[in-house]
Amino acid sequence: MNARGFAFEVTATAGRARRGRLTTPHGEIQTPAFMSVATYGAVRGLSAGDLEALGAQVLLANTYHLHERPGEAIVQSLGGLHGFTGWRGPWLTDSGGFQVTSLSDRVRVDDEGVTFSSPLDGARRVLTPEGVIGIQEALGSDVAMVLDECLRPVDREREDDAVDRALAKALDRTLRWAERSANARKREDQAVFGIVQGGVSLERRAFSARETASLGFDGYAHGGLGLGEERSERREVIACAHDELPEATPRYLMGLGKPVDIVDAIAEGVDLFDCVVPTRNGRHGLLFTSEGILTVRNARYKDDARAPDPACDCPTCANHSRAYLRHLLHTGEALGSRLATIHNLAFYFRLLRESRRHIEAGTFEAFHREVEALSDTRAD
Amino acid sequence: MNARGFAFEVTATAGRARRGRLTTPHGEIQTPAFMSVATYGAVRGLSAGDLEALGAQVLLANTYHLHERPGEAIVQSLGGLHGFTGWRGPWLTDSGGFQVTSLSDRVRVDDEGVTFSSPLDGARRVLTPEGVIGIQEALGSDVAMVLDECLRPVDREREDDAVDRALAKALDRTLRWAERSANARKREDQAVFGIVQGGVSLERRAFSARETASLGFDGYAHGGLGLGEERSERREVIACAHDELPEATPRYLMGLGKPVDIVDAIAEGVDLFDCVVPTRNGRHGLLFTSEGILTVRNARYKDDARAPDPACDCPTCANHSRAYLRHLLHTGEALGSRLATIHNLAFYFRLLRESRRHIEAGTFEAFHREVEALSDTRAD
Repeated sequence: MNARGFAFEVTATAGRARRGRLTTPHGEIQTPAFMSVATYGAVRGLSAGDLEALGAQVLLANTYHLHERPGEAIVQSLGGLHGFTGWRGPWLTDSGGFQVTSLSDRVRVDDEGVTFSSPLDGARRVLTPEGVIGIQEALGSDVAMVLDECLRPVDREREDDAVDRALAKALDRTLRWAERSANARKREDQAVFGIVQGGVSLERRAFSARETASLGFDGYAHGGLGLGEERSERREVIACAHDELPEATPRYLMGLGKPVDIVDAIAEGVDLFDCVVPTRNGRHGLLFTSEGILTVRNARYKDDARAPDPACDCPTCANHSRAYLRHLLHTGEALGSRLATIHNLAFYFRLLRESRRHIEAGTFEAFHREVEALSDTRAD
Repeated sequence: MNARGFAFEVTATAGRARRGRLTTPHGEIQTPAFMSVATYGAVRGLSAGDLEALGAQVLLANTYHLHERPGEAIVQSLGGLHGFTGWRGPWLTDSGGFQVTSLSDRVRVDDEGVTFSSPLDGARRVLTPEGVIGIQEALGSDVAMVLDECLRPVDREREDDAVDRALAKALDRTLRWAERSANARKREDQAVFGIVQGGVSLERRAFSARETASLGFDGYAHGGLGLGEERSERREVIACAHDELPEATPRYLMGLGKPVDIVDAIAEGVDLFDCVVPTRNGRHGLLFTSEGILTVRNARYKDDARAPDPACDCPTCANHSRAYLRHLLHTGEALGSRLATIHNLAFYFRLLRESRRHIEAGTFEAFHREVEALSDTRAD
């Protein structure tokens, strides 16, 4: 990796799965790793202390949202994300492009960048590749992402030819933006990751990976996935991109996914993950357990003294019953969301920890099958 | 005190202020003490661990709310409030009468009890003195409160004669209910406190205190205060009730108040307090500090790197800036409410700890004046 204070080393493999260590100026990340989503600089209801106790290694914040509130100048003046939030470990910031196109109805993408009206005040905003790098340099994240054009799922409903043309155009634009992003970098102590696009086309993914890699980023992400494609399709496009990416750089699957999606991607050699699923599901009372998904709001748990997952050693399961958690979620007590989020993050961190252990032990394939077997199982 | 496992001892005095120790089956409470409000069995967003770290001694839950959700039978089957919530220290439950009359428009109070339609499902509910004791016995709180009739503030706007008649009637009814409550007790390991009413009339308060005391409760509360009366009026009615109450039982001022209200009442010999002010104000971004009230949502704090209260050693002030707290509250992040609540509770616990220390040192009067001088001061 080019950026100062960074290194990436693969320490073990099992098939294409990789066990590694990503060194950043704010600490080491054992990979494969799950990054907790802290959109505005906080993981819903959890303090830095909660996250440390759970074994969180790295957090992800959203460039666009922090640009809107409180603004990167304020974050910078308070010591960047590390000083501002109190989470002193590594931070990754996404580019905000995906959020902008999801949030706003009035979005125009042209060669210059993305123009949209702010959902906050309706005013016109422009995100350019250079601007997005500048914002992330001010935020002071350890890893910045380039601005890319991610086609929205709705585009996949169109005629094949139209989708093809849109994909080709978006891909071309994303590559030119990537080059502008690389040229815009000023900070030497911040890694920048390029983003591979191309929908579910193997040719496009391979092309995108090859061209992006030629720009020499510190790492590479798979963008535009988790938008309705089949698991097998996803695995194929990830694999074919990896064939074109340098071995010695970290690979990040953006925004995915359920446990099975994560082990699928680990099996293809992905090193980094983020997803809102554990935190969002937690708030809705959907708990990941060793028996499958538990809908803890169900009436059947109203007097259930068991821990949400008796096999789990997280602070929620160690101290609280399903009945109490159900009661807190029913009455809208903020503690309910927090306890459920703590449990789900503990589940994800354990999933990644087990994955690392199984890669080292050469038993990852069997573990992958175990997680797969539990996929979509209801514990209720 | 009559209940098994309970004792109350006054260990120091300063004027009428008392420093004491209330022993319960679930631990000792150093008095004067502030009870954090955990309506549904949780203090907004805070875990038992958070509360222990802050030095919380005792929590207060709401009998009526827990009766509605999840129901006392469920709480009982899971080990009472201590087992259900994971807070293993002492619990006090209020009687729910005040909440019922505040929450529901269709309330009828007669000699039997309180009849109202549930805000949850519109169905008819009846709370009787016996029923309320029974619910609290099932909840398993350390201290239960009798059902009383607390006149709503709107009644104070009426003609004097009407107010007089209403007060006399409510007072009479509260006394008869108290007697029924005392007769309904079955648990020997639960203290029951009587409630003194009587508005701001010294005669009525003295009468109510004398008659309630004759029933031999384990402690006594001042009810119906904090509803618009002057500070001086409140001090007078508290003092005149104390003249009629046994020295060797704890005295509790229900539902109050701001810091100055608390030290005012300590000066008159009150031992126990509860109030939603620190938690509710916290959620709204109003912080109690050593310089006065800080409205941390104000734009002036947007890049303020100082701790909310630089003189405070709570986890919020030790780790976070005003700018971060403002940002979290602005963006609706649950962590903002939690950090603000932690700070405000730490402020209240410190206020009570300092009060205890000053009573022991014989310097409480000067401390009382200090708190008074800061009252209504803005730190902004």
